[in-house]
Amino acid sequence: MRVFIAGIDGYLGWPLAQYLAARGHEVAGADKFLRRGWVEEVGGQSALPIYSMDERLQAFHEHFGMPVLFREGDLLDYAFLRQFLADFQPDAIVHLAEMPSAAYSMIDQSHAAFTQQNNVIGSMNVLWAMREVCPTAHLVKLGTMGEYGTPNIDIPEGFFEVEFRGRKDYLPFPRQAGSFYHWSKVHDSNNIMFACNLWGLRATDIMQGVVFGTQINEMGDDPRLCSRLDFDQCFGTVINRFCCQAVIDHPLTVFGSGGQTRGFLPLRDSMQCLAITIENTPEQGEYRVFNQFEECYSIAGLAEQVQQVSAELGLHVQVNHLDNPREEREEHYYRPDRNHLIELGYIPTSDLKAELRTMLRDLMPQRERIQARSAVLIPDIRWNGQRERSNIIDPALIT
Amino acid sequence: MRVFIAGIDGYLGWPLAQYLAARGHEVAGADKFLRRGWVEEVGGQSALPIYSMDERLQAFHEHFGMPVLFREGDLLDYAFLRQFLADFQPDAIVHLAEMPSAAYSMIDQSHAAFTQQNNVIGSMNVLWAMREVCPTAHLVKLGTMGEYGTPNIDIPEGFFEVEFRGRKDYLPFPRQAGSFYHWSKVHDSNNIMFACNLWGLRATDIMQGVVFGTQINEMGDDPRLCSRLDFDQCFGTVINRFCCQAVIDHPLTVFGSGGQTRGFLPLRDSMQCLAITIENTPEQGEYRVFNQFEECYSIAGLAEQVQQVSAELGLHVQVNHLDNPREEREEHYYRPDRNHLIELGYIPTSDLKAELRTMLRDLMPQRERIQARSAVLIPDIRWNGQRERSNIIDPALIT
Repeated sequence: MRVFIAGIDGYLGWPLAQYLAARGHEVAGADKFLRRGWVEEVGGQSALPIYSMDERLQAFHEHFGMPVLFREGDLLDYAFLRQFLADFQPDAIVHLAEMPSAAYSMIDQSHAAFTQQNNVIGSMNVLWAMREVCPTAHLVKLGTMGEYGTPNIDIPEGFFEVEFRGRKDYLPFPRQAGSFYHWSKVHDSNNIMFACNLWGLRATDIMQGVVFGTQINEMGDDPRLCSRLDFDQCFGTVINRFCCQAVIDHPLTVFGSGGQTRGFLPLRDSMQCLAITIENTPEQGEYRVFNQFEECYSIAGLAEQVQQVSAELGLHVQVNHLDNPREEREEHYYRPDRNHLIELGYIPTSDLKAELRTMLRDLMPQRERIQARSAVLIPDIRWNGQRERSNIIDPALIT
Repeated sequence: MRVFIAGIDGYLGWPLAQYLAARGHEVAGADKFLRRGWVEEVGGQSALPIYSMDERLQAFHEHFGMPVLFREGDLLDYAFLRQFLADFQPDAIVHLAEMPSAAYSMIDQSHAAFTQQNNVIGSMNVLWAMREVCPTAHLVKLGTMGEYGTPNIDIPEGFFEVEFRGRKDYLPFPRQAGSFYHWSKVHDSNNIMFACNLWGLRATDIMQGVVFGTQINEMGDDPRLCSRLDFDQCFGTVINRFCCQAVIDHPLTVFGSGGQTRGFLPLRDSMQCLAITIENTPEQGEYRVFNQFEECYSIAGLAEQVQQVSAELGLHVQVNHLDNPREEREEHYYRPDRNHLIELGYIPTSDLKAELRTMLRDLMPQRERIQARSAVLIPDIRWNGQRERSNIIDPALIT
């Protein structure tokens, strides 16, 4: 199949290009390298060194025996997007080109406005371009499990049957996101659902859990194929950050009690699921929602597991609870479905500790790079609009 | 109370300033006059002549014995907005400053992108500015009943109790909007709900029906106080358009079967409801949703009533059914609640025919203005992205 990846330079985009090429798909991609700039803006850097796109493309060609058709550009540039899709005529479009950080979106008015404009208008431009130049292509859009929030009932995959005052309907499941970033993804979901109904486009909206990990098999030992791994307060997701903290003997930073429960999946499972999604095309006009994660864990439980695996490797790291800079429930019901991908053949990795071991081994040689930017490990972006570094909470105060 | 009106030059904004002044409130307002430009862009003009803001402000001062504090500017200009709110320190902010047309948002990619950017980022800027300079003010945001779409169950006011797999929660009611404009309002609703929960702001989100009418009592006979009235395919809402058609003996244009049912309210009821909302402040942190309409009517039923009242005035107009340029259900269940405003004292006008009579009388002297732009009475903006004028359907084919 011909697969177009928007955001091909990113944490998921670059491994996905490789994973798909190894399965015989033809890959094109666009990127404007904004992520590299955002991480620098917030004082971070990738723990694993990453290469220029020219070097990446060279390595890709050497390893997979085919080129990536790459063009530098932005989904906000509609003429660029439309022309690229018209030229490539993709079977599938994987949209990974959004600003992906909750904390970044909460910094101030301008970051919030940038986030929603970039994500909502970028995604809407994809819909218009599909309608105009490739209306039978399949849009695979990366949303987030965070769109749902933490309702006090089970979370189905996008839709549910409602009974209200004696009548029934099958309706979109209500969303309760927790940041302007998460809401931008809800806005996207709504626009995409609408375009599928209206124009007969086909799309799969992936409500993805938090991805972690440094490796997929296809990368081999070539450092040019390796993906970025961030650990700063904005772009460093929790397990990635914990592993970076462990290798420099920095206490693992749990926000609040750590009772927050979320769905997680290793990078290799994200690739597996995306390939399954791409290779199982929905009907024309169909809008599917897939909840995509391997398992649910509490943040405090994850910290404990990272601590245990670190100890096996001789790293004796402590766990600190910080006052929570976010507004979120720290104890809550959480039971999301994830049946659709399993039915299509997804086999969850299910060995968290093995994955953590790999990550810690990959990160140990990068201690100096992490240490050099360790200031970004403690959050100071607060959901109340202020900037103030989180303090350690007395463990006795945590129930 | 001190009331700030964003979009004070508009169809609702200008009468609202007068209605509130007559009730003793102090009014400030901003406008960038974009609406005047959009109507011109699509080939329309206000059926009732409207005056410049300078002339309007002069008349306002003469009639109500107090000035409006007016500044020209845009909600997208965050520095302007923040400074104005900081200077005025409003008790309530009425947000009427959005691009309000479904058809305009469906013209093409650039109009869709403009609509969502203008509406979503403008509204989000209001939230940030409130947090920063007037966190206790009450935001009265104009949404639309169109956010709900036409579900096969009753429509509550914003929230409902859900039972799912044996557990219960109180959740936002699922939205199913029908245009990129309507979705922009859903995105707003979501952002506003979030900001109230997060920052303790207070807001009332008005799901308003379709407003019609030329008059509120406060306008008297001064043409400088009169409000605009559009009849083009983008900004002319259905009853206003029907009345303009009737006075130039142009067939009333019903889209499809006309079985589409919506909530409607006369301009004077919109003013009454907004004043009630402003004068009944929610709690700090409270996000209220009010469904605001006088009565539900089908489009075909309305055409018949306009036809009858026109005949009484000697205007014998016919009704044409056009092939529907929109994607919408033409026959559907529709039962929305509207209890909150009634409980606060809203008394619906309930005399549609009297209102139509007033409108037709006000519009008869404007025949030449309407005739001059009668080309904009037949829609050619289609929800499928094409431009093609609607044709008359054989009445025998309508069930």
